[in-house]
Amino acid sequence: MTLVECEDEILIIDCGLAFPENEMLGIDLIIPNFEYLRKNKEKIRGVVLTHGHEDHIGALPYFLKEFSVPVYGTRLTVGLVENKLKEFNLKRYSMTTVKPGDVITLGSFKVEFIRTNHSIGDAVALAITTPAGVLVHTGDFKVDYTPIHGDMIDLQRFADLGRRRVLALMSDSTNAERKGYTMSERSVGKTFTEMFPHAPGRILVATFASNVDRVQQIIDAAAKYERKVVIVGRSMVNVVNTAIELGYLEVPEGLIIDIGDVRDYADEELVIITTGSQGEPMAALSRMASGEHRNIEIKQGDTVIFSSKPVPGNEKTVSKVINDLMSRGAEVTYEDAHVSGHASQEELKLIYSLVKPKYFIPVHGEFRHLKSHADLITDLGHDGRNSFILHNGNILELDSYSGKITGEIDVEPVLVDGLGVGDVGNIVLRDRKHLSEDGLMVVVMTLKHQTGQLVAGPDIVSRGFVYVRESENLMDGCRNVVIKTFERCKEQRVNDWSSIKNEIRDNLRDHLWREIKRSPMILPIIMEVR
Amino acid sequence: MTLVECEDEILIIDCGLAFPENEMLGIDLIIPNFEYLRKNKEKIRGVVLTHGHEDHIGALPYFLKEFSVPVYGTRLTVGLVENKLKEFNLKRYSMTTVKPGDVITLGSFKVEFIRTNHSIGDAVALAITTPAGVLVHTGDFKVDYTPIHGDMIDLQRFADLGRRRVLALMSDSTNAERKGYTMSERSVGKTFTEMFPHAPGRILVATFASNVDRVQQIIDAAAKYERKVVIVGRSMVNVVNTAIELGYLEVPEGLIIDIGDVRDYADEELVIITTGSQGEPMAALSRMASGEHRNIEIKQGDTVIFSSKPVPGNEKTVSKVINDLMSRGAEVTYEDAHVSGHASQEELKLIYSLVKPKYFIPVHGEFRHLKSHADLITDLGHDGRNSFILHNGNILELDSYSGKITGEIDVEPVLVDGLGVGDVGNIVLRDRKHLSEDGLMVVVMTLKHQTGQLVAGPDIVSRGFVYVRESENLMDGCRNVVIKTFERCKEQRVNDWSSIKNEIRDNLRDHLWREIKRSPMILPIIMEVR
Repeated sequence: MTLVECEDEILIIDCGLAFPENEMLGIDLIIPNFEYLRKNKEKIRGVVLTHGHEDHIGALPYFLKEFSVPVYGTRLTVGLVENKLKEFNLKRYSMTTVKPGDVITLGSFKVEFIRTNHSIGDAVALAITTPAGVLVHTGDFKVDYTPIHGDMIDLQRFADLGRRRVLALMSDSTNAERKGYTMSERSVGKTFTEMFPHAPGRILVATFASNVDRVQQIIDAAAKYERKVVIVGRSMVNVVNTAIELGYLEVPEGLIIDIGDVRDYADEELVIITTGSQGEPMAALSRMASGEHRNIEIKQGDTVIFSSKPVPGNEKTVSKVINDLMSRGAEVTYEDAHVSGHASQEELKLIYSLVKPKYFIPVHGEFRHLKSHADLITDLGHDGRNSFILHNGNILELDSYSGKITGEIDVEPVLVDGLGVGDVGNIVLRDRKHLSEDGLMVVVMTLKHQTGQLVAGPDIVSRGFVYVRESENLMDGCRNVVIKTFERCKEQRVNDWSSIKNEIRDNLRDHLWREIKRSPMILPIIMEVR
Repeated sequence: MTLVECEDEILIIDCGLAFPENEMLGIDLIIPNFEYLRKNKEKIRGVVLTHGHEDHIGALPYFLKEFSVPVYGTRLTVGLVENKLKEFNLKRYSMTTVKPGDVITLGSFKVEFIRTNHSIGDAVALAITTPAGVLVHTGDFKVDYTPIHGDMIDLQRFADLGRRRVLALMSDSTNAERKGYTMSERSVGKTFTEMFPHAPGRILVATFASNVDRVQQIIDAAAKYERKVVIVGRSMVNVVNTAIELGYLEVPEGLIIDIGDVRDYADEELVIITTGSQGEPMAALSRMASGEHRNIEIKQGDTVIFSSKPVPGNEKTVSKVINDLMSRGAEVTYEDAHVSGHASQEELKLIYSLVKPKYFIPVHGEFRHLKSHADLITDLGHDGRNSFILHNGNILELDSYSGKITGEIDVEPVLVDGLGVGDVGNIVLRDRKHLSEDGLMVVVMTLKHQTGQLVAGPDIVSRGFVYVRESENLMDGCRNVVIKTFERCKEQRVNDWSSIKNEIRDNLRDHLWREIKRSPMILPIIMEVR
């Protein structure tokens, strides 16, 4: 989420979610911190969306629960957002569909939508005219001279803008480390038409549900070789239906068949399009690989094509799925059936050179990508002092005379776990981490009111620590430590419960470390009876 | 660990450890299951080691605690094993140093050690003469015509063996998916000598501690450009010391300086060799990147060279370290400063073609690598029916007439956590996973003996679940559910504790799912007073 603020007005660009890092145990997803917006609610003029990927629209339901401001996006983007809002049961909102070329006015901002290419249809860049100058935001983009659906990126319009005066360019840095050009989406279709005739049995293709153009090419290749198509995986089914409804996917009558009808066709008459290209354990392909899918069993003769590249961090899970598929006898192809949706260095140079902004702000990507992008632009002759590598939360102030990072707002990300939004924070996560590594030991004792005499316990219960049955000696030892500690407390007239609990915790911790070199979470609980 | 068994005798090849998968929460390392060996203790004739990497020697201390059998390895391998045994305080063992070319006799086995090349010095392949025929095991290897230390792989000897009759070849499959040849280790040295003169300040090089030849080349480049060398990271210091002692590393007098003396030198006079090339959070480089290293602070002007490639699964942690280093102003290079230690396809073809075995068994690597290797060998004209892709635990029976997988032994890996070996199993791991994702809720009640009257509690304590302070309503609701459940049990004369606990657990689980869509582990504890 990016905010453009000028005088008393705020324009919001995108509202995406992130998926949790490994150490964010049990977290479902992460949304932006809306705190600054809450404090400046009356300034917000609207939200403009660049495209329909989760990292650009995924947090909108959470946002729209709190803020009633108008939202603008292209047709496919709006279609995907509305699907989402239905799931969240949100009904009151203002969503407007725009086309590339449209200009909308939001307060004193004018926003023009400019066609780009990306791995999802209907992606746009934004040219935002503000009282301080024109900002150009590329969104996620690549330059595809032969796109599958719709036209190529509107390079002329970028050139027009450059011919006038652009204050700042915010440009996609995801592939800024990659030399050369990103290949056209169409090149993948060629791979499919080369591969399909050689497959002796079923063909399974795994890709991102949101890559409608990829799905189109799989469907085209299937039609060409007279195979029926089965769509598998909840998100794949959802997106394909939305895309067909909105006309972003053209499917010959009768080509797509129901998964239940698979038995009516020979293996060599079938193409299965499925989710799970990232090895996600609950996705359809992973369940097929582990033999847990309800309808489809992998067998000798199957050809599985990964039309994707592992997102960093997923390499191992993807590899596991490949191993499992191969063990079941499938041929697995994981090369040449994918192209990126993001611009490589030559395309980045092109956009910069067309737009010729005064200030350059690399966006989207890790620090290394932003840095690489900034260095690339410096090599084009851009004054390095007019490039800004921003961290989340940085406030950059720009006018035609100067640009400067002037401060920072709190953007501590908000964690979503089940229905809870923001109720899991660092302490809870720290406890989860501790529990995950060493497990837990609960020590319960009941004391008599006033006398403090021990009337029940100590009982010790552990989870995630050791096999209790094989560790009776260890548990007996622990019980002794607790009893001795308690007796010593009584002798020394330590009577307040929290001191007793601390003593028990410390002594048990020392004992366990000596005995077994582990540090489970120790949770002493004292009850009182009259 | 591989066992060769013939009549009543067993020969053991290597005894390595594995590092835990992500889902093995809290586990330190994994060692082989020795159960089969325990049952066949008297058959074991000895252990032969191929090289000194952890995945080939790491479990030896655990093995030697139980089994007193002779161990054979080359000098560097034995040196590294002995370091390890010292840490484990193991004193009684029989370890013999061999040279490439040596032949030892163990029962009716004859084992010849054959020089190979790998990313650690003194690696060997094995030619094992058994009553049933000759087995050749490559160990981890590559073909390096210009190695840094010692000679190139003894291709002549492989050719000699092939000219006689080899029953089976077991060959390293790690890089079986890679086309072409693996580059010589020496090519990395060239990269260093090209990079070093361009670095304006300190140079930090991160690599595997065990890659002594790599360290040698860093030292050579440092000497060439008159920089002093600092060795950082516990395992790096250990290996470097061992390698210097044994003569595997040649260091000019006074070149290596103490980390404490760094301040006596200008930045451009220093090279720092460090662990942490895999982004391991506790390793020296990661601590420098996060600003937590005691001696070294990263700053503008530093050049950091990753002389390594992320092991699959580590891509994200490595990327995090790169981002952190760059944020602190360092230039970071992570390309061209590494070569693999494993043979690529052309080398694999060479070894197979020299040895010409009757049976082919791809070893080392995931299923996809083994399969790729087997396919590659089939393409050379090898009868596919005489290749065996084995899973861990498979028993392959071979003689000169036939080869067949005849069964399987239990090789469920043994998990090591602290001092505990094998006391953490699936139940404990399942609990850790549950705790890590959803946290824990403990419910404690004290009942009166016989009457079963509630005399204290229910008290509810949670960890890793929600911020309790902000969730008082939720906790009050839980307490009500427990009280109501308990009362209902009393009404219905449900008196046994385990039924009461189950009711509480079920009702609380339903309540929490309704309220917040989370499923913490629920641990009801009932105590009794008289």
